[in-house]
Amino acid sequence: MLNFDMYMPARIVFGRDTEKKIGELIKPHTKKVLLHYGGGSIKRSGLYDTVVKSLLDNKIDYVELGGVVPNPRLSLVHEGIKLCREENVDLILAVGGGSAIDSAKAIAMGVYYDGDVWDMYDKGLPIEKALPVAIILTIPAAGSESSGDTVISNEETGRKYGYGSPHLRPLISVMNPELFFTLPKNQIANGVADMMSHIFERYFTNTTNVDLTDGLCETTLRTIISNAPKLLENPEDYNAWAEIGFAGTVAHNGLLGMGREQDWACHGMEHELSAAYDVAHGAGLAVLTPAWMKYVYKDNIDMFAQFALNVMGVSKGLRDKEALVKEGIARLQEFYRRMGLPQTMEELGIDDSRLEEMAQKCTGHFYGQENKIGGLKKLGWQDVLNIYNLAK
Amino acid sequence: MLNFDMYMPARIVFGRDTEKKIGELIKPHTKKVLLHYGGGSIKRSGLYDTVVKSLLDNKIDYVELGGVVPNPRLSLVHEGIKLCREENVDLILAVGGGSAIDSAKAIAMGVYYDGDVWDMYDKGLPIEKALPVAIILTIPAAGSESSGDTVISNEETGRKYGYGSPHLRPLISVMNPELFFTLPKNQIANGVADMMSHIFERYFTNTTNVDLTDGLCETTLRTIISNAPKLLENPEDYNAWAEIGFAGTVAHNGLLGMGREQDWACHGMEHELSAAYDVAHGAGLAVLTPAWMKYVYKDNIDMFAQFALNVMGVSKGLRDKEALVKEGIARLQEFYRRMGLPQTMEELGIDDSRLEEMAQKCTGHFYGQENKIGGLKKLGWQDVLNIYNLAK
Repeated sequence: MLNFDMYMPARIVFGRDTEKKIGELIKPHTKKVLLHYGGGSIKRSGLYDTVVKSLLDNKIDYVELGGVVPNPRLSLVHEGIKLCREENVDLILAVGGGSAIDSAKAIAMGVYYDGDVWDMYDKGLPIEKALPVAIILTIPAAGSESSGDTVISNEETGRKYGYGSPHLRPLISVMNPELFFTLPKNQIANGVADMMSHIFERYFTNTTNVDLTDGLCETTLRTIISNAPKLLENPEDYNAWAEIGFAGTVAHNGLLGMGREQDWACHGMEHELSAAYDVAHGAGLAVLTPAWMKYVYKDNIDMFAQFALNVMGVSKGLRDKEALVKEGIARLQEFYRRMGLPQTMEELGIDDSRLEEMAQKCTGHFYGQENKIGGLKKLGWQDVLNIYNLAK
Repeated sequence: MLNFDMYMPARIVFGRDTEKKIGELIKPHTKKVLLHYGGGSIKRSGLYDTVVKSLLDNKIDYVELGGVVPNPRLSLVHEGIKLCREENVDLILAVGGGSAIDSAKAIAMGVYYDGDVWDMYDKGLPIEKALPVAIILTIPAAGSESSGDTVISNEETGRKYGYGSPHLRPLISVMNPELFFTLPKNQIANGVADMMSHIFERYFTNTTNVDLTDGLCETTLRTIISNAPKLLENPEDYNAWAEIGFAGTVAHNGLLGMGREQDWACHGMEHELSAAYDVAHGAGLAVLTPAWMKYVYKDNIDMFAQFALNVMGVSKGLRDKEALVKEGIARLQEFYRRMGLPQTMEELGIDDSRLEEMAQKCTGHFYGQENKIGGLKKLGWQDVLNIYNLAK
C-alpha cells in the first residue's frame, strides 16, 4: 500500500424529498446564491420551482445562470464568474449532472483568480480558495458531487481538460434517487459506464497489498452491475437507483483509490473523443475500456484474472489465466451491450480520419510534448492509436 | 435503503513517516496546541520527541497533558478544559489510541461550555462548536480518528457514556502503521475485535435493499479477518498493519452504516462490563458478540445466513439455514480464539454477582427508565441478562 492523503469533506444528504431541504441546508453558508443549471428539464420536472421555493422560504437571495451543456463550455464559465463578482455571490448551487457541477466548480475558483480560469486547466496552477459549491444531483454518473475534480471544454481550442483541488470538494450534495426516474435509457447507461470507469481507473494497478481497496472496488462494481439492468426494465425502481446513485458517489469520492497507483488512461483517451466528436463520455468509455483491457492485460495478468473472478463472476474452472481474463473482458462487453451502450468507434460515429490526431493530442505529442498516460501500463501515442484501432 | 446524511470530513494522512509532518499539517489551523496523551509509551518509543520536534520546527507553541488511561476519565477532561482556557489553546493534538482521542474530543467541546461537559454525555445536550482535534494514532481499534464519537467514564458515578456530534469529527488524523509495531498481542486482538464490532453494529440490520453497504461491510470484515492473524505471527508486518489500520478507520467513519438501521446493542452491553469491571472494550465485545448472535439470529435468519456465507466463508452446501448460521457464528468464535481473545465472562473475570445490575443499568431500568437497546432486535433488560448468561 502506498502512502495516501484522504479528504472527503462533501456532506451527502441522500434520499426521498431531500431536495426540498436545500435552502435549510445551505442557509448557514450563504447570503446570495448563483443557481446554475442546464436546459429546461429541471423547469419541466418542477425541480426548479422546488429549489426556488426552498431558497425563498429560507430568505436566501439568488441570481441564476442556465444553459450548461454536456461537455460544459468555458464561455459560460466566464459568464458565471462575471455574474458572481457583480452580484456578490458567496455560494454556487448547481442543479444538474456532472456538467452543471463541473461548470459550477470552474466558476467557484475563477471568481478568485484575476486571469483566465482556463489557466488552471491548461497549466495546472494551484488554487488557494474557491466559493463553496452545493449540489442537487439529477444524473448519477460523473461523481462530481463528491470529488474535487472538474472537466471543462474550451470551445475555441477544441481542448477538454480536467483539474482537481481539495478546495473544489463540494460543501453539500443532495441526492434524491426519485429525481433520476425521468432519465432516458441512454443517459442511464452512459452514467453507469462512467461510474464503473471511475472505479476501473483506481482498481487496475500494479500496487500490491491493497486488499481493502481491492475489495471495496470489487463490491461497488458488483453492486452497479447487478442493479443497473433493473433500471432499463423499470426506470422508477427507487431501490436500484439508490444503489446506483450511492455507488456513483463512492466510486469517485477518493476512497477506492487510496494507497494505489491509479491509471486514468481510459479517461484521457476518451476526453479526446468527447472533445473532437462531442460524444457522451460514458459511451466513449464503454467503447474504449474493453479495448484498453485487451491491449494491456498481459502486463499484469493477475490483476485482470482477479477482476474476472471477483467482479465478473467467472468461475475458477477455466483452463488457464488467459482464458479467464478473456472471459472477464467478454462479460464486461456483454454487460455494456445489455445496457444498450455502443461497442465500437463506428457506433460512436467516429471514423479513421482523426484517430492519429486524437492519439497525439492525448499524450501531448501534437503539442510538442511526449507524455505517457496510464499507470498499470504507460502508454505513448502509438499505444493510444493501437487502442483506438482495437476499438473500431 | 433509508435516507441518510453522510459527513466524513476528517482528513486521513496515512503511511510511513507521516507523523513527522504533524507540525506542517496543523500549522494553518493553530497557534497553540494542547498535546494530549496517555502514559510513558510514546516517550519510550521516541514518538513524543518526534512530535515535539515537528511542532517546534513549525513554530507551534504547545502545552501538554498526559495521563489518559483506558476508559478515559472525566476528571482528566476537566483538567484539560481548564488548561485550554488558561493557555488559550486553539487545537488539541491527541497522540495515542481511542482513549486519548475520546478524552481530547471531550476537552474540545468542554472548552465552549459553561457547565460540566458530562452534561453532554449524560443528557445528550447538543453542541454548536468544539476546538479542532488533530490526531496521531498509535492504536488502531476505536475508529475515533475518523468518527465524531467519544466515550468517557465518570469515575464518581461509575457510568460510561458515549456522545456524538459532527462538530467532533477530527480535523486531521495521521496514521503510520509502523507506530503499531510495538503493540502487545492482547491489544492487537482487542483492537481487531473492536473494529469488527463497529462493522457488525452497522451490518446486522432489518433494513433491506442495501446491497452496496452490505458489500462494503463484508469486504472490510474479510480484510480484517484475513490480515489480523498475520500480526500475531509478525507484529512488524507493515502490509498487514496497513490493511488493519485503514479498515479500522473505514469501519467507523460512518460510510458502512449509511442508509441502514443500526444496532449497537453489543456496544451498549459491553460498556457496562467496562464501567463495572474495567475490562478492555474489545475483549468484552469478543465475549458478548457471539452470545448476542445466538440470542437474536432467529429474528432475521437471512441476515445471519448472509453473514455466514459472505463474511465467514461457510459453503452453501450446509443442509439448512440454521446450520449455516450456527457454523458462521462458530467460525467467528474460532477466529476470536485464534486471536487469543477471551471466550467467556469467566475469562474476563466477571462472575454472576453483578449481571442483573449491569443488565438493568444498560437499559436504564436501574435508573427508573425502561429503554430498549438494539436495532435488529429490541432488547429489554431481561434480554440483556439472558445474553450475559449465554456468554458465561
